Amino acid sequence: MIKVIILGGGNVATHLAHVFIEASKVRLVQVYNRNITAIEKLKKHTAITDNIQKIKKADIYLISVSDSAIDLVASRLKVANALVVHTSGSTSISVLKKHKHKGVLYPLQTFSKNRKIDFTNIPLCLEATDPKDLLLLEQLALQISKTHYTIDSKHRKKLHTAAVFINNFVNHLYFIGGEICKTNQIEPDILNPLLKETAEKALAITPYNAQTGPARRGDQRTIAKHLKDLSPNQQEIYKLLSQSIAKTYGKKL
Amino acid sequence: MIKVIILGGGNVATHLAHVFIEASKVRLVQVYNRNITAIEKLKKHTAITDNIQKIKKADIYLISVSDSAIDLVASRLKVANALVVHTSGSTSISVLKKHKHKGVLYPLQTFSKNRKIDFTNIPLCLEATDPKDLLLLEQLALQISKTHYTIDSKHRKKLHTAAVFINNFVNHLYFIGGEICKTNQIEPDILNPLLKETAEKALAITPYNAQTGPARRGDQRTIAKHLKDLSPNQQEIYKLLSQSIAKTYGKKL
Repeated sequence: MIKVIILGGGNVATHLAHVFIEASKVRLVQVYNRNITAIEKLKKHTAITDNIQKIKKADIYLISVSDSAIDLVASRLKVANALVVHTSGSTSISVLKKHKHKGVLYPLQTFSKNRKIDFTNIPLCLEATDPKDLLLLEQLALQISKTHYTIDSKHRKKLHTAAVFINNFVNHLYFIGGEICKTNQIEPDILNPLLKETAEKALAITPYNAQTGPARRGDQRTIAKHLKDLSPNQQEIYKLLSQSIAKTYGKKL
Repeated sequence: MIKVIILGGGNVATHLAHVFIEASKVRLVQVYNRNITAIEKLKKHTAITDNIQKIKKADIYLISVSDSAIDLVASRLKVANALVVHTSGSTSISVLKKHKHKGVLYPLQTFSKNRKIDFTNIPLCLEATDPKDLLLLEQLALQISKTHYTIDSKHRKKLHTAAVFINNFVNHLYFIGGEICKTNQIEPDILNPLLKETAEKALAITPYNAQTGPARRGDQRTIAKHLKDLSPNQQEIYKLLSQSIAKTYGKKL
């Protein structure tokens, strides 16, 4: 049985808390958060506290707070010989330098409140300086997910940057597509089958082979027509991405 | 039984040919293409020709060629009293002005060779100037898809622009995400569960509510870290999309 304490009450912390509660070989001993209201719902499953001095004993302390607060929480956390881990994609393991046993468990996924997610399919990116600590982290990872990778801070940061393109920016383009529809009194749901197939096709045949559209063909006439329909901000995005696509396929715009 | 002839041999034409061949109340009478090799595989299912003078009789002639060629094909096509239809998102119905009975059947989906697609889930955008022609077009649509919409040329063009964001640009961001991984010796497949969940979450809770990430939070520190990892072209895209996200949520970057 691996005893775990979570520090944090945001999206990732809350999703992790629930998945540890369900895991058979993990015991979620306690959850700490500065603001107790955010973790109140966990009270029926585990101990909760807003006092970092009253942290209990555990094998792994998981700091899952905003990137800029990891440093502070880590420095206030007094633990004897346990493994202290953060869950951030873009933060180096060195932020935990005060602790002898340190690691990272970064779940490569997007989390939102009120959106359930199957944790078993999330790739977990693990890092630890000590091989024994890595082993413990791997044992924990196996309890909650089918896949984990060992990846150092430098590479994890690159991966996090890639994830911003795949998730944050993609989602924003979904938003713009919907806005264009709404501005023109078109029901945005009409785009849903296309949105779905775009993801499925890229997964099936790679994004490089899946690319279609006017920029891919170097079709300046259609591009000029489209630009007339857009707001200045949308035009800028349209132009830049079209240029980038055209360049990828050796076309001129 | 609706008798259909397709003019064209590209992705959309080929997918349509196959779906008409399967449809019980449609008879694909013939497929015409300037280059016969592109449609040779259809020979065992229907008549094929590369001579537009030898076009047979049908109820509906579907011109599914590149946007810039519709005009030419439509003007060369001699039909007595049949409905002439194009399948382009960004082209007005008026390009078919020579024909008395004209219409548009625009399948709102992305088509690639070697990628099978379930046509029944594709929204078909229909337009016709004559109510009787629209009725015939609707009858054809019902044979191949569960959903169709009546939408005029002006709105269809806007919808096509939205589709470029949802599909072409999204796919290119998938490509860039993969490139960042490859440049850093990370297996790009690690991003697949995130890519999938990004689409599913947006469909479930709307893109506006699904947005996460540094730009959404106004987290300049993480953005600065990410920018260091990118090529000049990727940096430009990163900055522009981050600004657009931040603006959407009233954050400053």
